[in-house]
Amino acid sequence: MKKKPRILVVGGLAAGPSAASKAKRINKDAEVILFERTQYISYGICEIPYYLTGEYKDKTNLVVYSPDRLQKEKKVVVHTETDVESIDRRNKIIQVKDLKTGVRRKEEYDKLIITTGSVPRRLTFMDSPISNVFTVKELARAYELHSFLKTHKPKRAVIIGAGYIGLEMAEALHHLDIDVTLIHRHPYPLSKIDEHNGKLLSSVLKESGIHFVSDTSVKSFGKSGDGTVKTVVTDNGVFDANLVISAIGVIPNVAIAEEAGIETGRLGGIKTNEKQCTNDDAIFAAGDCCEVRNLITRRPSYIPLATLASKMARTAGENAAGGSSVFKGAIRNIALRLFDHEVSRVGLTTDEADEAGYNIVTETIEAPSRVIGMPGAGRLTVTCHGDKSSGKLLGATLVGKDGAVHRGNVLAAMIQMGGTLKDISNLDMMYAPPFSPLWDPVIVAANQTLKKL
Amino acid sequence: MKKKPRILVVGGLAAGPSAASKAKRINKDAEVILFERTQYISYGICEIPYYLTGEYKDKTNLVVYSPDRLQKEKKVVVHTETDVESIDRRNKIIQVKDLKTGVRRKEEYDKLIITTGSVPRRLTFMDSPISNVFTVKELARAYELHSFLKTHKPKRAVIIGAGYIGLEMAEALHHLDIDVTLIHRHPYPLSKIDEHNGKLLSSVLKESGIHFVSDTSVKSFGKSGDGTVKTVVTDNGVFDANLVISAIGVIPNVAIAEEAGIETGRLGGIKTNEKQCTNDDAIFAAGDCCEVRNLITRRPSYIPLATLASKMARTAGENAAGGSSVFKGAIRNIALRLFDHEVSRVGLTTDEADEAGYNIVTETIEAPSRVIGMPGAGRLTVTCHGDKSSGKLLGATLVGKDGAVHRGNVLAAMIQMGGTLKDISNLDMMYAPPFSPLWDPVIVAANQTLKKL
Repeated sequence: MKKKPRILVVGGLAAGPSAASKAKRINKDAEVILFERTQYISYGICEIPYYLTGEYKDKTNLVVYSPDRLQKEKKVVVHTETDVESIDRRNKIIQVKDLKTGVRRKEEYDKLIITTGSVPRRLTFMDSPISNVFTVKELARAYELHSFLKTHKPKRAVIIGAGYIGLEMAEALHHLDIDVTLIHRHPYPLSKIDEHNGKLLSSVLKESGIHFVSDTSVKSFGKSGDGTVKTVVTDNGVFDANLVISAIGVIPNVAIAEEAGIETGRLGGIKTNEKQCTNDDAIFAAGDCCEVRNLITRRPSYIPLATLASKMARTAGENAAGGSSVFKGAIRNIALRLFDHEVSRVGLTTDEADEAGYNIVTETIEAPSRVIGMPGAGRLTVTCHGDKSSGKLLGATLVGKDGAVHRGNVLAAMIQMGGTLKDISNLDMMYAPPFSPLWDPVIVAANQTLKKL
Repeated sequence: MKKKPRILVVGGLAAGPSAASKAKRINKDAEVILFERTQYISYGICEIPYYLTGEYKDKTNLVVYSPDRLQKEKKVVVHTETDVESIDRRNKIIQVKDLKTGVRRKEEYDKLIITTGSVPRRLTFMDSPISNVFTVKELARAYELHSFLKTHKPKRAVIIGAGYIGLEMAEALHHLDIDVTLIHRHPYPLSKIDEHNGKLLSSVLKESGIHFVSDTSVKSFGKSGDGTVKTVVTDNGVFDANLVISAIGVIPNVAIAEEAGIETGRLGGIKTNEKQCTNDDAIFAAGDCCEVRNLITRRPSYIPLATLASKMARTAGENAAGGSSVFKGAIRNIALRLFDHEVSRVGLTTDEADEAGYNIVTETIEAPSRVIGMPGAGRLTVTCHGDKSSGKLLGATLVGKDGAVHRGNVLAAMIQMGGTLKDISNLDMMYAPPFSPLWDPVIVAANQTLKKL
């Protein structure tokens, strides 16, 4: 009798449970076991800012699948609070440690799926955890932040980094009546944003009551007697803080993979092929620990987003279980709400396009989001980056009070399909006064960018 | 010295002013003259329902360009209240009649652009105008309806036809506290809608207080002594009415074109090539009077929408002025608001797909529009029609309280780019709790439809 195949999954946040569930669905005979270092699996990080303010009102407290539910519904065995310490590829064995008992054991695998995700980039001057310094990444820490806000009622928060998580946290803490200072290394919020939209977002922050401190690097913390931070010291002044959020990005969590000789790329993530298979054909990887093929440049890029983690996981799980699935890559599509504004960024930034050798044309337009005179109509800014040689759209940024985000999806679809600005100009888009003017802003933007090509 | 080229444009609603402006912009030396039968040009029909309720608050009273403004800003000579009675192709002359003076005259052309639009389909039993029976098509009549509503304060309205204009008018009149009966020949609102969404829209109407009378044909009017309608007689009962809106569709207005031997197609519209040129190379046509190439079936179709009229006009105007522009065709993209619901329809209906010989697969899904637990999240229904042979998306209907319409644009873009359901499944769409869940409903729909392929 043939032994049941054994598929082990390392990491339980977004990609892990998806990959495990998919593997079990593809091969019902397989034994699928997931290991997670913390006590939680399958939760939504993106919901954390809205959970903290109470705007998000789901009964599950951010958890999509509890370990029990994943076991019951998806037939995946889950070991939480279990650390995977190393991978012995030669013998197809991993060493795990039960963090509750401290007991180590070995687990054999036929196929291994690495979904170890990412870890927050560390502040270089911070050696050990500080009770009032938080990152927005792990659920346990989010719960701690939630209770910290309730019990300590901080008056002043400093957020380090104005990427999308920093911005969402600025909004969230402001809604909780906390005085928020947002410190950013660059002149404008979000990375490599164009000047027009950068200024627009800076003014949205200012008008909303956020102290946005640009072009500033954090150097150290000033501490109270109890070891908590009381000031944030920068090259541009010292800022009081009862609470610090560090949101300076994430890096792939690849320590055990690298130790085992799994190949990583220039950007630090695990290299996989289209089947999400690593350089070891028994080992797959998915999610934030991986690099992903950029569909525009056809080069590796690092895009740590849950949407892509889920798609990679679907592919990794299917292939680990003997199926055949392909993940072609992504273009990057990020959206956020910033107070009364919507922000959407799709495709390449100008820096990325430059680096990839494109001859870029950039144009920014402002157009009404709906028929002027209809309720809800607002100005929408659309910035397009086109490629002079091919006429293709490479990337876009949309900012406005109305309809920026879903229109970003339209441009994302066009980029992904290799659409040219001419194709966008010719799009048959809807015109209905409560939703859109005769010429959708997306078409207006394409037309204007075309003129510069 | 060479004579200035003379470009005449027949019809001034949507396509005419666009074509004329474009022609003048392309050739500044050309003499561009526009003739319009009524006193108004360049207005928004789609805004009329919202104008009647006062929701639309633009100071221009629906007019985009007044004749004066078109003359001043676009250097187009405009003759309103001037009827073009016939075209003499041999001598390149049109006969026009000044409706104010009754005087006829001849006007020579080098190029002629026909933008005569469409006319409402007539109720067969109605021989002459009735003061309380309105169509929603011409601006003068819309103003009359506006003042009729104010002065007569009708209590009961019957709307004939539940296409999108009938539905928008039902909403508008209901907001004006009028008891609305909506009579439709088919079982569900909108033409050829699938059963699931048809039932959903019927229930939206019912819950909103509209009497939706399906599968019913109007036979005649019962009249008062003054000749106004007091009852609408159907094969399914008699309905009281102080006001009747006839919204049973439009047909191409091609009388003078046909008389002059301009070729029309099976669907009654003027046939043009990609340059919007008719069978006479001195005569172009654009807008509702034309058939349009369906980009999915590659067959002629009739899609009387302002978005397409504008695109055709751009091309006709440019080519008439000696430029070179192409209009490839359209897929049809219609959106409307129906009380608290958004409705989007893109691409082919099942009937159209059937007729074109496709082997259709249809699937309907329901999915949350945003992360469940976030404010504004609602159920969204997405119905996809896929082609079994090519795997391509042929058409889709989206209905829901949130995010149906802009998502329709994403699917429209995918259809227009020839995208398969697999391509849609692989789309890199944004995930941000205030706007969209991890798996956008559009991707969920594609995944489920793929399973049936």
